Amino acid sequence: RIDGARLWDSLMELARIGATAKGGVCRLALTDLDKQGRDLVSSWARAEGMSVVVDQIGNIFMRRPGRNNALPPVMTGSHIDTQPTGGKFDGNYGVLAGIEVVRTLNQHNIQTEAPIEVAVWTNEEGSRFVPVMMGSGVFCGAFTLDHAYNATDVEGKKVRDELERIGYIGEQVCGDHPIGAYYEAHIEQGPVLENADTVIGVVPAVLGLSWYDCTVTGFESHAGPTPMEIRKDALQVSTYIMQEVVAIAHRYAPYGRGTVGQVQVMPNSRNVIPGQVKFSIDLRNVSEASLTRMHEDLLAYLEAMRKKTGLSIELERVSYFPPCPFHPDCVDKVRAASAALGYKTMDVVSGAGHDAIYAARLAPAGMIFVPCKDGVSHNEIEDARPEHLEAGCNVLLQAMLASAGV
Amino acid sequence: RIDGARLWDSLMELARIGATAKGGVCRLALTDLDKQGRDLVSSWARAEGMSVVVDQIGNIFMRRPGRNNALPPVMTGSHIDTQPTGGKFDGNYGVLAGIEVVRTLNQHNIQTEAPIEVAVWTNEEGSRFVPVMMGSGVFCGAFTLDHAYNATDVEGKKVRDELERIGYIGEQVCGDHPIGAYYEAHIEQGPVLENADTVIGVVPAVLGLSWYDCTVTGFESHAGPTPMEIRKDALQVSTYIMQEVVAIAHRYAPYGRGTVGQVQVMPNSRNVIPGQVKFSIDLRNVSEASLTRMHEDLLAYLEAMRKKTGLSIELERVSYFPPCPFHPDCVDKVRAASAALGYKTMDVVSGAGHDAIYAARLAPAGMIFVPCKDGVSHNEIEDARPEHLEAGCNVLLQAMLASAGV
Ligand SMILES: NC(=O)NCCC(=O)O
Ligand SMILES: NC(=O)NCCC(=O)O
Repeated sequence: RIDGARLWDSLMELARIGATAKGGVCRLALTDLDKQGRDLVSSWARAEGMSVVVDQIGNIFMRRPGRNNALPPVMTGSHIDTQPTGGKFDGNYGVLAGIEVVRTLNQHNIQTEAPIEVAVWTNEEGSRFVPVMMGSGVFCGAFTLDHAYNATDVEGKKVRDELERIGYIGEQVCGDHPIGAYYEAHIEQGPVLENADTVIGVVPAVLGLSWYDCTVTGFESHAGPTPMEIRKDALQVSTYIMQEVVAIAHRYAPYGRGTVGQVQVMPNSRNVIPGQVKFSIDLRNVSEASLTRMHEDLLAYLEAMRKKTGLSIELERVSYFPPCPFHPDCVDKVRAASAALGYKTMDVVSGAGHDAIYAARLAPAGMIFVPCKDGVSHNEIEDARPEHLEAGCNVLLQAMLASAGV
Repeated sequence: RIDGARLWDSLMELARIGATAKGGVCRLALTDLDKQGRDLVSSWARAEGMSVVVDQIGNIFMRRPGRNNALPPVMTGSHIDTQPTGGKFDGNYGVLAGIEVVRTLNQHNIQTEAPIEVAVWTNEEGSRFVPVMMGSGVFCGAFTLDHAYNATDVEGKKVRDELERIGYIGEQVCGDHPIGAYYEAHIEQGPVLENADTVIGVVPAVLGLSWYDCTVTGFESHAGPTPMEIRKDALQVSTYIMQEVVAIAHRYAPYGRGTVGQVQVMPNSRNVIPGQVKFSIDLRNVSEASLTRMHEDLLAYLEAMRKKTGLSIELERVSYFPPCPFHPDCVDKVRAASAALGYKTMDVVSGAGHDAIYAARLAPAGMIFVPCKDGVSHNEIEDARPEHLEAGCNVLLQAMLASAGV
């Protein structure tokens, strides 16, 4: 069993780097604070006798040798970059749970058959640099190293230059690195476990995701003199589409999700009928078939609205992640470990993307969820209970041992 | 009859002050450009032998004496400040039509019984300083001089200081100034005249207006992991209210207007369910009774939505102008003048507020509308036809003569 207090202390120590007034963390990818966090985590790994290797996109791999080092390592990991108003647990927990697993193995002098590795993936959040899950994405070949290197932040700074600046551009070729199995412990970022009063979420899959930008163009005119009958109000037409996004999600329950999170109204003046509205659409579901049907329903609705209103309605798909089922071996090992440890479990499909979905393209993978307070994440008030974090880390230890062999 | 070419030339000359690349005008209230515009118009008035007086809020009154100067003047006027992306005609037409009336009287040596006055009202647009129709509002006592003086722009500059800076803070006490009758010529800012192929709009009234800020507060959470059933999506609830605003306007046809022009979504991120949405509501109608019923319908709907959704929905009224019927004498004189001149007319209720609604609190008042291209105003592409502007100015001349006596 792992040491819950030691895990908690490390989480709190790492959370001091970039700590915000409201109790959260702001540690954007490839900033000086990210460097400090990386240095701290690497130093903890070295103190446990682990080797530390950095690859070309800045992913850090910290390895504890096994009895048979020809075997591919059993890996765990996550990220330590945060949202601008992020919390102490998102990502950080997965990395430090990995370090705690190694500390426990060292403390009890347990040797594994396969090596154990802990990964810190670069820029998971995608706040400063797009695309999200950059390090794991390059690692698994979802996009090229060059594409990632040339991503810029709002000031025009490039990933490549920032990696160099903070000293985390490594020599290891990305993906030149077999993996035996991959586990990731993470807070749920949703309310399911807490509402069900359950400690461990076994994650069978991650929802697939389609992101769109929708632009409705009507005609800008004065709110007073323009009769209702002849208006081409881009916002009114948009409200029906926004409601349809939610209706589509309900139609493909229970895993359908539909969200409009971002809206821009032009010219955005109190007494001007909006001439143009741009908004984001986020559709998710657990199977590719259902996500495709949601996509088709959206297209059909937009076509009907075009006919009905005569307004121009454009839709552009800006991102797509197919649904990611995790490997039955890993899912079963998480379930078995929880049962052996006596923890209450339930299946929780992940609604959010994680580095694990890229790792799953290369190796059997699985995730372990623990509850977070009120299901809140990407927020400075993000919180989690020490005993839940401890439980999740115990499950991680047992699942990794089951995969690595003792 | 007035000289249409001379009127057009003056409009084009004034439009050069603050001209924009797209053919519009940006001449915000109390800027250096506003001063240049005021100087030019005053110089034209002086050239016609008119006296020029400025009051404490910067309204300019340009007077042509009558035979009996004990009689209150028959006044016309409008404003020369513009929207940031404004046009050449909104306001400017009303002022220069007044100047053209005087030029015509001088040219034909016509003496009126009562004096003729042309007013340039300060800050009608309300773009740089709130409230709108500031000069005419102070003049008629709708709010105090002090209230207007302390209004600030986005940089914190005060009306009083800016008036002083451009040299247009006068000594005449605001409102210390009887008026016999008031006429204002203006582009319609709507499509009714153009669609009906009619030259002159006789304006029986101006719609009353209620402005509100509505704030819907839900709970911010992650678009992926949060099941549809437990969301408190502030934007979804807002879309129903936005649709109800339009439904209410249709319910109180034909003069009902309902517009949501301004929307702010928080945190406005693609994968975060909006926790809070703020938006404006603009309701208008021709009678106080119908505007009150629209207000009550809105309150009832919001109460029902509170009960149905459990979300917090706040409504704040930020402005109110009661409907303004114009004086039958003035309306009839506009109609009669148009008939005598052989122009096709129709009644067009003004959907937009004008300085005339404040003048109407002090004296019989009326307005003359002419078509504008596609009904577009508050836009650099605002346009109007010389022959329509000429026709409106002829009607203004005849209506003023009828009120002033020859
Ligand atoms: N974990 C997480 O927030 N990933 C970002 C992409 C998503 O919205 O799922
Ligand atoms: N004429 C004009 O645009 N007035 C502004 C106030 C309104 O929206 O009616």
